[in-house]
Amino acid sequence: MAKTCVFNLNGTLLSYESLDSFFERGFKRSHVRPLWFQTVLHTAASLTLSNRFEPFEAIAVRTLYSLAEEEGVEFADDATEEFVGLLRNLQPYPDAQAGLDELRRAGYRLMGLTNSSRAAGIEALSQAGLADFFDEVLSAEAVEAFKPSPEPYLHVAEKLRKVPKQLWFVAGHAWDTMGAHQAGFKTALIFRPQHGFNENFPRPDVAAETLPHLAAAIEARDRTLLQHVFGEAREHRALN
Amino acid sequence: MAKTCVFNLNGTLLSYESLDSFFERGFKRSHVRPLWFQTVLHTAASLTLSNRFEPFEAIAVRTLYSLAEEEGVEFADDATEEFVGLLRNLQPYPDAQAGLDELRRAGYRLMGLTNSSRAAGIEALSQAGLADFFDEVLSAEAVEAFKPSPEPYLHVAEKLRKVPKQLWFVAGHAWDTMGAHQAGFKTALIFRPQHGFNENFPRPDVAAETLPHLAAAIEARDRTLLQHVFGEAREHRALN
Repeated sequence: MAKTCVFNLNGTLLSYESLDSFFERGFKRSHVRPLWFQTVLHTAASLTLSNRFEPFEAIAVRTLYSLAEEEGVEFADDATEEFVGLLRNLQPYPDAQAGLDELRRAGYRLMGLTNSSRAAGIEALSQAGLADFFDEVLSAEAVEAFKPSPEPYLHVAEKLRKVPKQLWFVAGHAWDTMGAHQAGFKTALIFRPQHGFNENFPRPDVAAETLPHLAAAIEARDRTLLQHVFGEAREHRALN
Repeated sequence: MAKTCVFNLNGTLLSYESLDSFFERGFKRSHVRPLWFQTVLHTAASLTLSNRFEPFEAIAVRTLYSLAEEEGVEFADDATEEFVGLLRNLQPYPDAQAGLDELRRAGYRLMGLTNSSRAAGIEALSQAGLADFFDEVLSAEAVEAFKPSPEPYLHVAEKLRKVPKQLWFVAGHAWDTMGAHQAGFKTALIFRPQHGFNENFPRPDVAAETLPHLAAAIEARDRTLLQHVFGEAREHRALN
């Protein structure tokens, strides 16, 4: 039975830092990028709470223009096209390839699960040279509900015909591992040194500061669980 | 039958700008405040999507410390106490009193609905000198689900024994009027000139740049609806 890790893409394998120069040019400072990202996330979550849906990329673009209006920034006519192109061409974190490689060599099947469209997710992985590691990319669009609501995670489990507790979910944000945890997944958080842990969210099952270390922690946890099962089986045999 | 307006408090009648000097001292720049606020909002929404709950004030404080960790900022021992004190002592927008006064004179009963605790909401209104305008403040805590999920809005309607379409919901954020709209309320957005409209959200029933103008728009809309009803009644009588 193939073991499976489901990966969030943006902010986990691909870095939004690639957008900083766009924000620096438009807003004359890069610190608008984290504000833009949190606003996009809150907008997506709000729509799902209100039982409405808009594609993530449209939310991302409209949020950019709403912030521009607040800051009195004017964009050129082709800014939307440029911005969408950048969103689909995020640079991979330097440790992404080594982490994915480690998991593949350990026999894990890899899936993507993104709040973006499936096409945007696949394009971004291809541009970053990471597409070959993945069997499939699934999107929250298929269920018209964004993570961290349970539906997208359960959609992956259903597609894989697995119960969630057999699956790992790997992300760079604790709100995302929380959503997977609530849906029943085992959870792994890539906790980069420059990130603060938001104590509002539950702790993941494993965490590490680099993706190769996280891969090792996932394997170690699965070996331990396996030993427990074998241990119980041996004990059972000894008792009978 | 008393007409009723349900008001969001923070960001609508009370301004988070009161916190800017705290952020300036701690982070050496005030622009962290909008990022903090969007992160708090996304955290609250994420918890509700995951069917979990934490008090809003606890989310606000933990998010502050998570951002401080990211920025390498150290707070003094009494920073939490100071911050919570500031949260409960937000300054009113300069047009708040005149807007509430206008609605009361027009015969509207006023209610508060906050994602904060009921106690924090009441304390903040008192500190701002606005408590006397309000019959009651209700909190999302009562249903352990944050706005913009439907539960808090429906909680108010239930307490008032009204159907939502008889009630106005007034807020300074389009994600909040969206939630109220989805729950069936009439919606009024105070759209301050320095805010950008986030086109991801549906347009409210009425909008204005100041609270007195918004109050007038609410009254005008209700008069128009009343004229429609009377018009139909007259037409009905003429036909029979």
